[in-house]
Order: sequence, then C-alpha cells, then structure tokens
Amino acid sequence: MTTVRGSIEANIKMLVASLNGGDAVGVAAHYTDDAALLPPDAGRIDGREGIQGVWQGLIDADIRDVAMNTQEVDVFGDVANEVGTISATAPGANGGRAQLSGKYVAVWKCCDDDTWRLHRDIWNFDA
Amino acid sequence: MTTVRGSIEANIKMLVASLNGGDAVGVAAHYTDDAALLPPDAGRIDGREGIQGVWQGLIDADIRDVAMNTQEVDVFGDVANEVGTISATAPGANGGRAQLSGKYVAVWKCCDDDTWRLHRDIWNFDA
Repeated sequence: MTTVRGSIEANIKMLVASLNGGDAVGVAAHYTDDAALLPPDAGRIDGREGIQGVWQGLIDADIRDVAMNTQEVDVFGDVANEVGTISATAPGANGGRAQLSGKYVAVWKCCDDDTWRLHRDIWNFDA
Repeated sequence: MTTVRGSIEANIKMLVASLNGGDAVGVAAHYTDDAALLPPDAGRIDGREGIQGVWQGLIDADIRDVAMNTQEVDVFGDVANEVGTISATAPGANGGRAQLSGKYVAVWKCCDDDTWRLHRDIWNFDA
C-alpha cells in the first residue's frame, strides 16, 4: 500500500517534471481548485488558473533545474502538512546561471479522484 | 469557551507585542521546544534557542511596527494550520522607514500547559 508520504513524493516528482518541462498546465493540475499560492515577491494568488499563471511566469523567467526534497510529512485525515527544501537555477551574471536554494511548507488535501493535491503552498529562498 | 482560532489570535497578539517591545525571549516562548523557523534570506532554524536568536537579529536590524493578521485557521485535533498576512517597517533610504508586507503559514501545536505554540513558521514578502 502506498503511504501518504509516498503519494505526496510521487506528486512532487510529477510536478517538478512538468515544471522543468515548461508545462505550467501540468504543474497547476497538482493544485486543488481553491488552492492558494503564497510566492515570494508577489501577493497571494487564489485559484488554479491564477496559480498556473504564476508558474508560467517563472517558466518564462527561465527558472530551471528545479528540485524539491521532502523532509517531513504529517497526516491529519484528508490533510497533510509537508516541509521540504527546493533548489533551482535562474539567469545569472554574464550569461551564467545563479543557484537558488530555499524551503517550503505545503498543505495537501485529499481525495477528489483519489489524488492528493496542493492546497496551500508557500516558499522562500535562503539568500 | 475560547475557540482554537481565538487562542491562536491571542497568542499572535502577545507575540507581536513582545516583538515590537524588543523582547526576543518573549517571542521565542510562543514556539514549541522542537519548532522550526523557515525565514526568508536564511536557512531553516530548529529549536527555540536558535529561533530566539533569529528574532533578536531582526530586532537588532530595527524591524518595527510589526502587525500580523490571521486569515485562516484549520484545526486537526492538537494541530492547527494558520495562514495570515504580515506588515512591518524596516530602515529605508535617507533615514526613512520602508514598508514591508508579506504572508505566512504557521503550524501550531497544542497543548503542553494548555497552550498553543508555533511549531513550523514560514513567511515571505510580497515585493
């Protein structure tokens, strides 16, 4: 039997593959209809359509090489809290790439169509 | 009877009063012993002593006029997820003050000595 943590890690893996593939629709499919995204350097965004727009903006800004690493998952029935770390690269000085590292808290919800989806998602960078 | 949301809002009010009063020990008292702080522009900090140090650093950096506004509280037994907004001022250009606004997700835990305490705490700024 797949654990909740296993399901969440599998979803994160798919989300990251969509993101690194430039597929904002695929990324947004991992959020609930009434999800809220709380990104750095922008206000809170409610709803899957707006969330897709944020990810499209980050893809257009040439954010690449995204990796996410789950550190903790705590399950409360149909809700799970995840804490993890992120890394990525962004366009840097002299045409190079800058390395980003950060951390996130994600609140997941289950189970329309048996799938865990991101319901609240906040992150920031370490420097 | 006080609701969980009421208890959390009361704790936030006390925390903010300690912070604006320059009392990092008072702020840290609102965290669990094994809390983790995930601040922007720094790595994850585990444990109340380290968390007190982060808040002391922000007090020393002359962060002032902190306000926190609870938007959502979801309770799962002895855990509650809070989403809210923050505002504050920081030293700005020409000796003035810069206005900061942001958002946070806090995971609270109950109930050693009947008190809800912050267990995971992450925030970022809107611009």
